[in-house]
Amino acid sequence: MNITLDRDKPIPLARQIQAHLERLIHEGLLVAGMKLPATRELAQTLGVNRGTVAEAYEELVAAGWARAHVGQGTFVAERPEAPGTSPWPPSGQTGHADPATTAPARLDWLALLSRSAQIIAAEDDRTRTLVSSAASNPAVTSFAGGMPDSGLFPTDAFRRVLNQVIREEGASLLQYYPAGGYPPLRRYLSTYLLRFGLEARPEEILIVNGSQQGFDLIARTLVDPGDTVAIEQPTYPRALQVFRSFGAQLAPVPWDAAGPRVDGFERLLERHAPKLFYCQPSAHNPTGLTLLPETGRRLLEVAGHHHVPIVEDGFDGSLYYGARPAVPLKAADAHGVVLYIGTFSKILFPGLRLGWVVGPPPILERLQAAKQLADLHTSALIQAAVHRFCERRLLDRHAARVAREYARRRALLLAALGRRMPSEVTWTEPQGGFSLLLTLPPGLDATELLPAAIEHGVAFTPGAPFFMDGAGSGTLRLSFSSVAAGRIDEGVRRLGETIKAARSRPRGRSRLEAAAVPVV
Amino acid sequence: MNITLDRDKPIPLARQIQAHLERLIHEGLLVAGMKLPATRELAQTLGVNRGTVAEAYEELVAAGWARAHVGQGTFVAERPEAPGTSPWPPSGQTGHADPATTAPARLDWLALLSRSAQIIAAEDDRTRTLVSSAASNPAVTSFAGGMPDSGLFPTDAFRRVLNQVIREEGASLLQYYPAGGYPPLRRYLSTYLLRFGLEARPEEILIVNGSQQGFDLIARTLVDPGDTVAIEQPTYPRALQVFRSFGAQLAPVPWDAAGPRVDGFERLLERHAPKLFYCQPSAHNPTGLTLLPETGRRLLEVAGHHHVPIVEDGFDGSLYYGARPAVPLKAADAHGVVLYIGTFSKILFPGLRLGWVVGPPPILERLQAAKQLADLHTSALIQAAVHRFCERRLLDRHAARVAREYARRRALLLAALGRRMPSEVTWTEPQGGFSLLLTLPPGLDATELLPAAIEHGVAFTPGAPFFMDGAGSGTLRLSFSSVAAGRIDEGVRRLGETIKAARSRPRGRSRLEAAAVPVV
Repeated sequence: MNITLDRDKPIPLARQIQAHLERLIHEGLLVAGMKLPATRELAQTLGVNRGTVAEAYEELVAAGWARAHVGQGTFVAERPEAPGTSPWPPSGQTGHADPATTAPARLDWLALLSRSAQIIAAEDDRTRTLVSSAASNPAVTSFAGGMPDSGLFPTDAFRRVLNQVIREEGASLLQYYPAGGYPPLRRYLSTYLLRFGLEARPEEILIVNGSQQGFDLIARTLVDPGDTVAIEQPTYPRALQVFRSFGAQLAPVPWDAAGPRVDGFERLLERHAPKLFYCQPSAHNPTGLTLLPETGRRLLEVAGHHHVPIVEDGFDGSLYYGARPAVPLKAADAHGVVLYIGTFSKILFPGLRLGWVVGPPPILERLQAAKQLADLHTSALIQAAVHRFCERRLLDRHAARVAREYARRRALLLAALGRRMPSEVTWTEPQGGFSLLLTLPPGLDATELLPAAIEHGVAFTPGAPFFMDGAGSGTLRLSFSSVAAGRIDEGVRRLGETIKAARSRPRGRSRLEAAAVPVV
Repeated sequence: MNITLDRDKPIPLARQIQAHLERLIHEGLLVAGMKLPATRELAQTLGVNRGTVAEAYEELVAAGWARAHVGQGTFVAERPEAPGTSPWPPSGQTGHADPATTAPARLDWLALLSRSAQIIAAEDDRTRTLVSSAASNPAVTSFAGGMPDSGLFPTDAFRRVLNQVIREEGASLLQYYPAGGYPPLRRYLSTYLLRFGLEARPEEILIVNGSQQGFDLIARTLVDPGDTVAIEQPTYPRALQVFRSFGAQLAPVPWDAAGPRVDGFERLLERHAPKLFYCQPSAHNPTGLTLLPETGRRLLEVAGHHHVPIVEDGFDGSLYYGARPAVPLKAADAHGVVLYIGTFSKILFPGLRLGWVVGPPPILERLQAAKQLADLHTSALIQAAVHRFCERRLLDRHAARVAREYARRRALLLAALGRRMPSEVTWTEPQGGFSLLLTLPPGLDATELLPAAIEHGVAFTPGAPFFMDGAGSGTLRLSFSSVAAGRIDEGVRRLGETIKAARSRPRGRSRLEAAAVPVV
């Protein structure tokens, strides 16, 4: 512990030490029950007499900040008041000893933000959406979370493979590791992707920290400020934000039932020279739709002809609700224009932060160099554990199990919507993924509806953040992946009632107090 | 498995399937011993008769690509030739069935690189240094690796805490997690940093993927293309590269024995308005030096007066070889100008990719928003395991043990240098960290010396990449952290001999063939 003492001050050193420790306790840096350094030790560190420290400790005990246990030492006491409830410094001591009270002018950091940081700050405000703390209330059925159900996690099986790989190769997995990734995992993915028709050699696969890092590395490797990026609409808000944060101008390509509109993409190419086109062709978030094979073929032709890279966010191909998985665009990529991003976040654990990018070697090498500067490499331990999990066929077994369960929840949600929704409400029929997009009757705004919905016991994600031009305010996303099957119908009933009630009410922002949290 | 079949081609479907599978086997995507899909299953997927698939499989077996086991199925055979040794397509089959042979023009990705990616590519070339594959030869004593010794890793203790945290809170640690970090780890760090005099509340600490991600997030949050960044010289090459990759112009502030020269920093401030100043005040890489307290005070005053943030790369405060750890600049940061970066990579495991940034709340919030866009969050599982490791005092015990061992190696290296080096050679005396910087006799170039050194059984890292203006060619870095104590003297003897031999030889680039690898 290092305490700055001012020997020129008229304040005794013991008092300075005491005031410093009081402030640390007050601010929660020294917590109740913690042992203070031995007086001899602290005196030596600070270059003062041991008696000076002892005096400071005695004062602390007298003031109730510490307790002394004979033969054991001095310990931080339970504080008489919760932090933040008492003013600091305590009244009567103002100006005493605490150098922070006479602190010089502080740096104004926000005046120094880069253009990118300013864009991110503006985006934070734009996509902050009203989800009251009531949404974490167990009485509220929440269709808001776009994540897998942690109740289905194969946690213990994963713990066992983690043990195995640490036992067998711990020292090398915990050392610095090459940026490209754990070679057996790259080889496994090479074979795994064949199931979806996607052919990639291990050296065409870069391991990254989840798809989010894939977006980020691609953006920094291809996008300069002022570049146009073509992007499907609606789309995943965090992908959109990444491209914006690198200074891109976004040009939307709207989805219809067949996928992103190729004619819209072609018209856009007449006016702009986009640096890339981003889309989620299967298990599309928020709609759950998959593009038709014919749309995919035409997109590839147009992109190849115009030399525009396609960034294909593959979500997880294993999560499909039809007879077979969708074929990724990358599988038919004759021109070598597609960068494919995959992830273990949906089918296994989001918290591992493990994904991959597939692309032609020249660009993959540049993405790898960017990865190396971003964070050197992805944890090899996590990569090895996931590889072992896959190799033991535990992933296949788990994927089949969760796909069945999510299919059941999807069917229950669709049935409930058919039964409970007013006739003017429409929604997409998801073929993959975790969610669908619902369109409210004309005149209703999802963000405005949310507080009333939560009050009535149901939550959702307003659709606006999935759109880039102020559209989508009449839409909302319902995620079925983490809602227990038994609660789906009741949740939809409440949503239906909320919508009906809103239609018969004059419009106006609800006054329910709501905390702002970003979309997940 | 998805095989694109062209029903309009004059080639029978069975032949198309066979050719496709042959190519997959040839390219190593289907590996020896792998079971091919059941004929019924593949026929259904492709929409062909089962007999067509069976015919393709029979041809594969006949050609030696696969083996059939009655009642078990068809398996990929050991290949008669190693991959890459036979031309593809096999002679006599050219133009047959494989769409790749008539592939359309491929996208020229390198023409699309962003300015940042172009800078990274140029940096890769600049800092690539000649370390022959001989350096991984066990007969070569390598002072080149700036990493902890994996032989000292507490691997099994870590495995046990990992088990505990998965058992106790696996489901929540494997789910999406808030970007700021695992709260108990942030609280622990808050108390841990007090030992070094650094006071930070948990909410002033952001968990990141190692210091490297700290540099990256700070650069993207503060640096715009064209900005000046003041940076100590010599310094850690990957920090320098990160700032360059965001378009910064670097302005060097030279180190002397007292630390970065404050007068140099002040002169720089007269000509430029740098966006920040980057330095490693203690355990400096490559020199191992620590700045004097007086230098630190003056740096803080100047930075505060000119409103220039200091990015303090703290390495690991626990690795010091004096009586007590150096006090970080952040500990005396009255103006709130310092962002402090810490890491578990040096004292624990580099492979975990776990570090932290300490800073005032307004800027920390912006760094957190950048972190969220970069990769959502750092693995909570890893954070919880490290927290448990620390809380059980295992880190303290381990840190004391490795610091003792590294101190021993440092002393052996210094003694050997004193004994073995020609009189014109000088070096720094490291007070912390893993390495020292050695200066060769005038006229010798470390990069040119390296091949001869390796040939003579000793390796090092040339100093040039640690400098930004073409300086440092006569310096080299010796890392003592991962060289066994028993090999240090012999390694230094060989280095001394190599230097003496080079002085008596006319200069000229060695012709030893060398593979280029980047500095670690």
